[in-house]
Amino acid sequence: MNTAVSTLPVADVKQLIDARLTDYCKVRTHTAGQVSERYLVLWESISRLLQAGGKRFRPYMVIAAFDAYAPDQDIEAIIPAALAQELLHSAMLIHDDIIDRDTIRYSVKNVTGQYDDHYAPFLHDPAERLHMTQSSALLAGDVLLSDAYRLLSKVDRPAELTSKAITIFSNSVFDVIGGELLDTESGFLPAGSTNAQTIAHYKTASYSFTGPLTMGATLAGAGDDQINLLSQFSDKLGVAYQLRDDLLGVFGDETTTGKSTSTDIKEGKRTYLIEQFIDCATERQKEAFFEIFHNSQASDQAVQTARTILQESGAKARVEERIQTLAGEATHLVGELLISDDSKATFYGLVEHCLSRKS
Amino acid sequence: MNTAVSTLPVADVKQLIDARLTDYCKVRTHTAGQVSERYLVLWESISRLLQAGGKRFRPYMVIAAFDAYAPDQDIEAIIPAALAQELLHSAMLIHDDIIDRDTIRYSVKNVTGQYDDHYAPFLHDPAERLHMTQSSALLAGDVLLSDAYRLLSKVDRPAELTSKAITIFSNSVFDVIGGELLDTESGFLPAGSTNAQTIAHYKTASYSFTGPLTMGATLAGAGDDQINLLSQFSDKLGVAYQLRDDLLGVFGDETTTGKSTSTDIKEGKRTYLIEQFIDCATERQKEAFFEIFHNSQASDQAVQTARTILQESGAKARVEERIQTLAGEATHLVGELLISDDSKATFYGLVEHCLSRKS
Repeated sequence: MNTAVSTLPVADVKQLIDARLTDYCKVRTHTAGQVSERYLVLWESISRLLQAGGKRFRPYMVIAAFDAYAPDQDIEAIIPAALAQELLHSAMLIHDDIIDRDTIRYSVKNVTGQYDDHYAPFLHDPAERLHMTQSSALLAGDVLLSDAYRLLSKVDRPAELTSKAITIFSNSVFDVIGGELLDTESGFLPAGSTNAQTIAHYKTASYSFTGPLTMGATLAGAGDDQINLLSQFSDKLGVAYQLRDDLLGVFGDETTTGKSTSTDIKEGKRTYLIEQFIDCATERQKEAFFEIFHNSQASDQAVQTARTILQESGAKARVEERIQTLAGEATHLVGELLISDDSKATFYGLVEHCLSRKS
Repeated sequence: MNTAVSTLPVADVKQLIDARLTDYCKVRTHTAGQVSERYLVLWESISRLLQAGGKRFRPYMVIAAFDAYAPDQDIEAIIPAALAQELLHSAMLIHDDIIDRDTIRYSVKNVTGQYDDHYAPFLHDPAERLHMTQSSALLAGDVLLSDAYRLLSKVDRPAELTSKAITIFSNSVFDVIGGELLDTESGFLPAGSTNAQTIAHYKTASYSFTGPLTMGATLAGAGDDQINLLSQFSDKLGVAYQLRDDLLGVFGDETTTGKSTSTDIKEGKRTYLIEQFIDCATERQKEAFFEIFHNSQASDQAVQTARTILQESGAKARVEERIQTLAGEATHLVGELLISDDSKATFYGLVEHCLSRKS
């Protein structure tokens, strides 16, 4: 987030959320230890992951939206809701990593990765060990998802608002599970009616943007018209964020993003960028591109050729244009929100961040 | 449950819960269909499983406890809490089946099993298909766990009581995840300090008995002393239930239980029965038994020999005795509850059920 145009200090919020997550991890790890030393190990691995990374972007949005609509209220009352978003996010990452068979997250071993070390002396068959480490990660995600709701119920706001917030939260989960399913199946089921923007809407925008922002505003007591505008705003923001993510996944700087920029091409990820390419490329460009795309053995040079073709076809420019359009629409919507200029600046900061982020 | 000694009709409660679950499945499947035809498939598979079986035992206990402490209140207000218990149970079964690599539940294909048919035309590699079917089941369990909390927040009781109920519910989830981890790891980690009764406490008693009963009573506004007595009662009940389950898993009638009675022996499941056997058997009995136990190739005749040894060693009698002791203590605790004689009859019916069930 661009702190220059934002009045709610991102760094301060991150520090606050980090501290509360540390407290939460301590309490839960202690309680788990009373059950068994083995449950303690699970919570230690969860705690390590929760503390290894994360921009606390979702908690920030909960707090920003609450502050925009209830500027006189102490944000302390809704911190549990902000933490709940982070726990949900972690639960989803842990389960996503099982599906993707990843063992690294935030440059450290994720739950599966940590359990691989833990089980190695007892399970020598790699397939059996993988299954058991994934089982532990499955349980870790479950308990975090459950604890997200536990925290949410501790929000110190009128019961009617808390109840609405829980409904919003469960809508987010319903959406993200649908989006995750679509995304996973897009790897092996026929394309059908699913497109990349639909997946971005459900997998990214709904739970990472619409959920946190509308929950914060709801807890502040904002009216339905404002919630409706915020939903539109956050959906555009979320889709723009995902499209930027897709571009970074191909054209980004690996040292900045911390992720490989050849994986998406080699694994044949059907992003909006690829959809645009299919729509605008020449037959010759397509032929050359699809020799490299979805070829796990492709060389670095071949991947670079694929990048060049994507650029020359005009597909990259189309995605950039779409991001600009979404950002413009989101910016326009901020103008319609009944919030202070300071809060508007915070929201413009969010747009700016999604538009121009490099990691 | 024994309807003869119970005043709350079990069959009526089951019919009510079945009908509400059907409604719930319809609504969710419809909403999923608006996301994508693929998400519709997931919800159809969830619906099939939810409607294929289940005694609605947990919802019954929520309602029984609520009715005992708030006999003048309409149970309608807390039906969402009763349904939440059933959704949690289904979520846990779906995830448990992933861990155990089972594809059948209630004599029908579970989510993994149904997805195996669905993905078969597109994924020919068995290992890859298994991973993807398990991924779908993982997502199915997640959304059910989330929806359990969603329903719970719809309970029509004073906010303070609903909030307490959510805490109880999340304590159950915390416990059952710990219990599931211990149970899973007991298959390959050194025995350590974990014993079968501890696992039964966390894996079975907490979420299947203590959760539903204390939640129902809490929603009725029962005092802390009553909740405390109910917790003790339900823990004894739950552990007795699990020990009976262990006995049925070895000595039961397959046509009644619907489950194999040789699997536990062949897979080497370390139940309380086995712990007692180790404690009371002669060296010769142990030698003969452990040639068969944990041997997946054991013949039916060998398994029958193992059963005879368990019986002759006195281990079976010890477990029966422990069940009787727990049932006696639970019965005594019912006497201390400040509820009507009719409600006491319902609770005695629960004890009777756990004591003498055949399936």
